[in-house]
Amino acid sequence: MTNTKPEEQTLSKREFILEEAAKLFVVKGFKATSMKDIAAVIGVEAASLYNHIKNKQEILVVLLGGLADSFSIGIHEIVIKKASSRDKLEEAIRMHIQVSLENRNKTHLILEDWKHLEEPELTRYLMLRKEYQDLFKGLVIDAINSGAIKKGNPELILNHILSSVRSIYNQYLYSNTSKISAQEYEESIIDFIFQGISG
Amino acid sequence: MTNTKPEEQTLSKREFILEEAAKLFVVKGFKATSMKDIAAVIGVEAASLYNHIKNKQEILVVLLGGLADSFSIGIHEIVIKKASSRDKLEEAIRMHIQVSLENRNKTHLILEDWKHLEEPELTRYLMLRKEYQDLFKGLVIDAINSGAIKKGNPELILNHILSSVRSIYNQYLYSNTSKISAQEYEESIIDFIFQGISG
Repeated sequence: MTNTKPEEQTLSKREFILEEAAKLFVVKGFKATSMKDIAAVIGVEAASLYNHIKNKQEILVVLLGGLADSFSIGIHEIVIKKASSRDKLEEAIRMHIQVSLENRNKTHLILEDWKHLEEPELTRYLMLRKEYQDLFKGLVIDAINSGAIKKGNPELILNHILSSVRSIYNQYLYSNTSKISAQEYEESIIDFIFQGISG
Repeated sequence: MTNTKPEEQTLSKREFILEEAAKLFVVKGFKATSMKDIAAVIGVEAASLYNHIKNKQEILVVLLGGLADSFSIGIHEIVIKKASSRDKLEEAIRMHIQVSLENRNKTHLILEDWKHLEEPELTRYLMLRKEYQDLFKGLVIDAINSGAIKKGNPELILNHILSSVRSIYNQYLYSNTSKISAQEYEESIIDFIFQGISG
């Protein structure tokens, strides 16, 4: 492990900075966090951060861009699959849960900090998000039309689905049910979305 | 309308400042918002704000305190009712939806800005929130024990319920389905929570 090549060390140092910055944005807020704060958490001088990252905006662009790409690739792969509309919708929900869980520290960016993106990245991000929601809504509409799920307003249904998945970010859940595995949690959300809490 | 008594004018001016401050906290974030920003939005000099409000912290305490009290009173009234555990759970969910909808501009405070409360208000707020969640969880446990809802981890079920209700704060919903009435929206959430999206 100490034999890592120099390029790999640089890469992982950058990744480490991005991860720590993401966590700090959650706690302090993006606006209130300075490069100095990020350096302090990592335990280096602010000046040495600039060898890896240009500024706070670059951190935001890289983090949000990576996340948005994961969601975008995921939904595109599902849309083109040959499967029933019910299975495709379920798969999209599972993909959304998995990407969210894998990026738990970064999801705050999606919910709150995207507002701080500057142009042209802001427009690019909003377009990706709109495309994602439209493709997801398409899966909902297909599932309604095939009778796989109840009739209803597709936007409301999509909103219910995405809100349910957002329970992942609930701090209350972290502190109380952290013994639950990611797999169990995923199954619980899927069951809740499709069947509800009634017996 | 112009015949309001002086005290009433003062009261409504204060209320107006609180409302506008709450909206600004959503857009800019609590930390990044200054009393000067709030004054600018209202169209007065910052100095004149201080006739109504001591500082930003007081705004946060008053807004969050009022919201927390609404939720707290609501859940206490339901807990002591004589009704089936299924009806009480449904009523608690409806109460939560209604309080959230009535305070739509302030709910960001509950989700994000409570972190900026100072002591002793922070501790008081966290105790009220914990009590609320415990009473709500009690209703879930009663509903499980009576067979009114499926067996499962009560904390997970409560988390699913509260996340579903949180769909109210989704900006996507505002922009796309704003023709939906509060009543329709409430019914849609209740159906989603109890029955899910399956047919």
